[in-house]
Amino acid sequence: MDVISYRPEPHELAWTFGGVPPVRRVQPGTVLELWSEDAFAGKVRGVDDLVSQVIEFPFVNPLTGPFHIEGAEPGDTLAVHFVSIEPSRDWAASTTIPLFGALTSTHTTAGLQEPLAEVVWMYDVDTVARTVSFRARFSDDHVVMPLDPMHGTVGVAPASFEARSSLVPDAHGGNMDTPEMRAGVTCFLGVNVEGALFALGDGHCRQGEGETCGVAVEGAMDTTVIVDLVKGLPTPWPRLESDDHLMSTGSARPLEDAFRIAQHDLVTWIGEECGLDPLDSYQLVSQASESPIANVCDPNYTVLAKIRKQYLPRLSAGGAYAGVHARLKEIGAAYQAQRL
Amino acid sequence: MDVISYRPEPHELAWTFGGVPPVRRVQPGTVLELWSEDAFAGKVRGVDDLVSQVIEFPFVNPLTGPFHIEGAEPGDTLAVHFVSIEPSRDWAASTTIPLFGALTSTHTTAGLQEPLAEVVWMYDVDTVARTVSFRARFSDDHVVMPLDPMHGTVGVAPASFEARSSLVPDAHGGNMDTPEMRAGVTCFLGVNVEGALFALGDGHCRQGEGETCGVAVEGAMDTTVIVDLVKGLPTPWPRLESDDHLMSTGSARPLEDAFRIAQHDLVTWIGEECGLDPLDSYQLVSQASESPIANVCDPNYTVLAKIRKQYLPRLSAGGAYAGVHARLKEIGAAYQAQRL
Amino acid sequence: MDVISYRPEPHELAWTFGGVPPVRRVQPGTVLELWSEDAFAGKVRGVDDLVSQVIEFPFVNPLTGPFHIEGAEPGDTLAVHFVSIEPSRDWAASTTIPLFGALTSTHTTAGLQEPLAEVVWMYDVDTVARTVSFRARFSDDHVVMPLDPMHGTVGVAPASFEARSSLVPDAHGGNMDTPEMRAGVTCFLGVNVEGALFALGDGHCRQGEGETCGVAVEGAMDTTVIVDLVKGLPTPWPRLESDDHLMSTGSARPLEDAFRIAQHDLVTWIGEECGLDPLDSYQLVSQASESPIANVCDPNYTVLAKIRKQYLPRLSAGGAYAGVHARLKEIGAAYQAQRL
Amino acid sequence: MDVISYRPEPHELAWTFGGVPPVRRVQPGTVLELWSEDAFAGKVRGVDDLVSQVIEFPFVNPLTGPFHIEGAEPGDTLAVHFVSIEPSRDWAASTTIPLFGALTSTHTTAGLQEPLAEVVWMYDVDTVARTVSFRARFSDDHVVMPLDPMHGTVGVAPASFEARSSLVPDAHGGNMDTPEMRAGVTCFLGVNVEGALFALGDGHCRQGEGETCGVAVEGAMDTTVIVDLVKGLPTPWPRLESDDHLMSTGSARPLEDAFRIAQHDLVTWIGEECGLDPLDSYQLVSQASESPIANVCDPNYTVLAKIRKQYLPRLSAGGAYAGVHARLKEIGAAYQAQRL
Repeated sequence: MDVISYRPEPHELAWTFGGVPPVRRVQPGTVLELWSEDAFAGKVRGVDDLVSQVIEFPFVNPLTGPFHIEGAEPGDTLAVHFVSIEPSRDWAASTTIPLFGALTSTHTTAGLQEPLAEVVWMYDVDTVARTVSFRARFSDDHVVMPLDPMHGTVGVAPASFEARSSLVPDAHGGNMDTPEMRAGVTCFLGVNVEGALFALGDGHCRQGEGETCGVAVEGAMDTTVIVDLVKGLPTPWPRLESDDHLMSTGSARPLEDAFRIAQHDLVTWIGEECGLDPLDSYQLVSQASESPIANVCDPNYTVLAKIRKQYLPRLSAGGAYAGVHARLKEIGAAYQAQRL
Repeated sequence: MDVISYRPEPHELAWTFGGVPPVRRVQPGTVLELWSEDAFAGKVRGVDDLVSQVIEFPFVNPLTGPFHIEGAEPGDTLAVHFVSIEPSRDWAASTTIPLFGALTSTHTTAGLQEPLAEVVWMYDVDTVARTVSFRARFSDDHVVMPLDPMHGTVGVAPASFEARSSLVPDAHGGNMDTPEMRAGVTCFLGVNVEGALFALGDGHCRQGEGETCGVAVEGAMDTTVIVDLVKGLPTPWPRLESDDHLMSTGSARPLEDAFRIAQHDLVTWIGEECGLDPLDSYQLVSQASESPIANVCDPNYTVLAKIRKQYLPRLSAGGAYAGVHARLKEIGAAYQAQRL
Repeated sequence: MDVISYRPEPHELAWTFGGVPPVRRVQPGTVLELWSEDAFAGKVRGVDDLVSQVIEFPFVNPLTGPFHIEGAEPGDTLAVHFVSIEPSRDWAASTTIPLFGALTSTHTTAGLQEPLAEVVWMYDVDTVARTVSFRARFSDDHVVMPLDPMHGTVGVAPASFEARSSLVPDAHGGNMDTPEMRAGVTCFLGVNVEGALFALGDGHCRQGEGETCGVAVEGAMDTTVIVDLVKGLPTPWPRLESDDHLMSTGSARPLEDAFRIAQHDLVTWIGEECGLDPLDSYQLVSQASESPIANVCDPNYTVLAKIRKQYLPRLSAGGAYAGVHARLKEIGAAYQAQRL
Repeated sequence: MDVISYRPEPHELAWTFGGVPPVRRVQPGTVLELWSEDAFAGKVRGVDDLVSQVIEFPFVNPLTGPFHIEGAEPGDTLAVHFVSIEPSRDWAASTTIPLFGALTSTHTTAGLQEPLAEVVWMYDVDTVARTVSFRARFSDDHVVMPLDPMHGTVGVAPASFEARSSLVPDAHGGNMDTPEMRAGVTCFLGVNVEGALFALGDGHCRQGEGETCGVAVEGAMDTTVIVDLVKGLPTPWPRLESDDHLMSTGSARPLEDAFRIAQHDLVTWIGEECGLDPLDSYQLVSQASESPIANVCDPNYTVLAKIRKQYLPRLSAGGAYAGVHARLKEIGAAYQAQRL
């Protein structure tokens, strides 16, 4: 088992998918122990640290990576299994940002109203009790919610010679901001360039579906993933597999196009995996799918289409992609057993 | 306890919210035992019953009602508690419909491609095992899924002297097609005209989130509701309360506007119920809300914003609207006890 | 030549398309001399008359009509030729309205920002010089623009037993708010109910494309139209014909769907009128069409697709619909000659 | 007067804005005589040259450039005056492309219908008669339309370290596909990186508003521009100035956001140029603006907001940006006089 630990120095952070040289070259099957800074580049540490004052755009949402996966070529699929995602600090932060978020005009949903006030909320993170604690700023209220760590941003270099800001979700993955990107899940990403150039960041201690105000409970993370390759099989949009579900993502505007992409991908994916006619698959998905919204605030909005594996006739025993998820999960278990 | 049973004759079905005289006048607090025909007006009974042939538009999605609630006035809120929703037949139907659904061009998302083929699927409904069974049309596959009965269409007469097709969801409720409209839930609807003119229909044995192909597992239903009034308190968009959650709905196009409406309503609603500042409420909802998509196929798309009551500081013990849900649930329990 | 003059009393104004009994029954070919009140029901007469104070919702955008056209049946097309549209006062008004317009959050594009200030602008209207004059409210600036009178709202009763607010544009016409609805143009509307039930209102002394702030230069109008029937020929979306152009309209959200509807209708319409293959028609329209935006503020947005008749091979000499526009224009000329 | 002529070899073509080294470094004030290949990289030369067969994605829509403008820094504005745009061949081509265009499902407006047929149309281009000629493929029809040459793609390197495909329009310009980008116009582009890195391509002999089928009358062009700098004055979205109009662009999805961006930019721009209060400017633009749609087919849709300079009180005599357009136009006239 190859294990590589990597903790970027501030000057090693990446701000785009594509257009950045790799920080490491790794073999398929490698376990990566990664640390990622929070989306504020660690600069929001108290309620007086307003984003508009402490962050110089575009130095927001830093990435750890990219990693060149040896042998990855366009037309392949990169599999990334999340072994664990754990907050590396006992606090996290959220905020409103002027002209950003779902319940305000923005630079694209442009308007003439005054922006909302810029307010920061600090959260206590308890990794033992597995909780995060919200404290209201304008009253004495206090709410304890479950810790549910995840990565908002996971992706590879895009196609068409593009480089995309780490704030953007699209077919290459990126800033999808879905709570489903949690430990135990395998993410499948289509490879667009040699080496795939995988990176991640934007840890969230938890977030609501939609990330309504534009910002989650943002925290630095210690994350272990296993990367692997599915040679010769392309993946049009990022997909996820958990023990119980298959999930397709779509990222686009308007939001219905994100929904359409995800549903279309799930319909065709399970059609192929299970040998179902597209119309039968369309009907089954119509009655069986869940559709968790990921974000309605980023440059593209993201929705998932999610179906229980138990509803999928003839899905191979190990799951999709001939059982990659089950196999990587086993390796992850072996890795974790070894660490104890 | 006033109990009224009503089973419409075919000529008594309503096809709009508004513009239709009431079938009954009932007192607040009345238990209504209702039967509703399926969305096909009962005309799709086998795989050869194509909607384009057996249904004459606009005679689709019939409503049971409307009911005039005595004392209901504009500015009040109608509470509808769903005691039970049970399929009244052992079969149900679904179908593709040309130029209708999320993964096809439509009359508004207009295009020049040929429509998808029109195909009907029949489902077995087992109310003892609590299952519905999908049978593929183009292979021998067969999938058993949980029965989860709900009403796609629940609403009152709209404002502004309008009458709206039963296919339309909007601020008056209507064809929201959310799986959350199941037994055990209380639905709150703003009253726009004297008597409110409540109606329901479009029973689904189950549906996926988004109702992707445009049609759920459509079935006739035996449904018991209790109707009640909250005087002097308006409700801008339909809301739901279950034992564990508060939910706001939004119905609009594009889909992000449905999301915005629902989130905005939840933020302001819990702000008022709990005495939270709007920005604190915005932050809490951003981290805590679920956002189940209802439909992405109807004339307006529908999304819910949903939050656990346990995350709501200072929510009154009985829940929202000073405890209407808890009170109606008790009456429902008494009614059911009495029936045994 | 049948000529009917009609000036509604305040209590005769209509507020919906559909759901209202006709004010007159008229024969096809009749000349109607109509007066229409402005969209504010005449209640904004100075800069201190704020809409939120002087107007009680939904009593906004009053209609003159509806007129029952004898012999009109579903499946027919109503032709309405605008002989003249002239301001009946020497002033007009515009305003911002809280949470209405394209550059503000609204009740559907919901947000948490404070609404824009409510400000009224009064315009001088000079029907001899053919100008309207804008006076800035916050500086001494003054701008003279051409008078270009038009009707924002023209339509018939909708299908599916619906009644729609006069603020809504859709397949029945209604509040399309296109500057193309000016004198000299013939509007074609699909008939949905017996008698068609034609009405109009919402005179604008001029407006920009998009009606950005939500309100045009609103004025009462003296308008002469000739109504006629095309029997047995349906019209799916409102169309216009001028001496030089054919135009299709689309009204929907998001705005691209309004564009798609209008382009799709123009492609199929000229395909049928000229015997062009749909793909040839698609290509020709792609290179030749203009796409004037009508409104981006109403419950549906409206766009037109517009093509010069000179680019249409094999269009019949009199124009579309076998020459209705040319024929009604002649009758209009005869009527005007008679009046002098 | 510095004059630089540049005709790229095939291997010198650029396929992105950003991520490409400059082909030349030029001083502000330089006249550039450029040749640009057509959007098909010259590979569609007859009706049998199907894009899906002759073009290898992403080698589509090649750019001439980029040019490093000496002294250009982030926060400056690049002015590009189009002296002339002339077809360099006597033919041009258009086509349908599977799953691309406004009246078909696409990879983002995903659906399950069969794609439209792939059909190529060849056009005759007559630069003396100033016409382009459409020949139907499925009938004998033939339509002559005015030649109206323009560039679909004009831009600079984007901000945030991004590189964007030449198919994408956004704040950096790019593939806006507006017929307003014709000879006689000055385009203003915000500078995001040192040297600005200006490039252009995608000549159209003409196009309809919206570029409905996704492809215009595509042709190689001989184009003369003058580039200049406005130091210290940023430009948020591409703007155009002609002798008679100021124009702002917006590129986004959904289409209403493109409209909002353009209108918001025009309102604030003329507010600043003319010293108008934002609400006065909003009102004036609402009544005076034209809103030509550029494209409804590219990764972002583009709309313009356009106003006559004569309606702008206190606009400086030379126009916006302290008269850059008038000054560059004079230089262009001197250049053209010199060539004769």
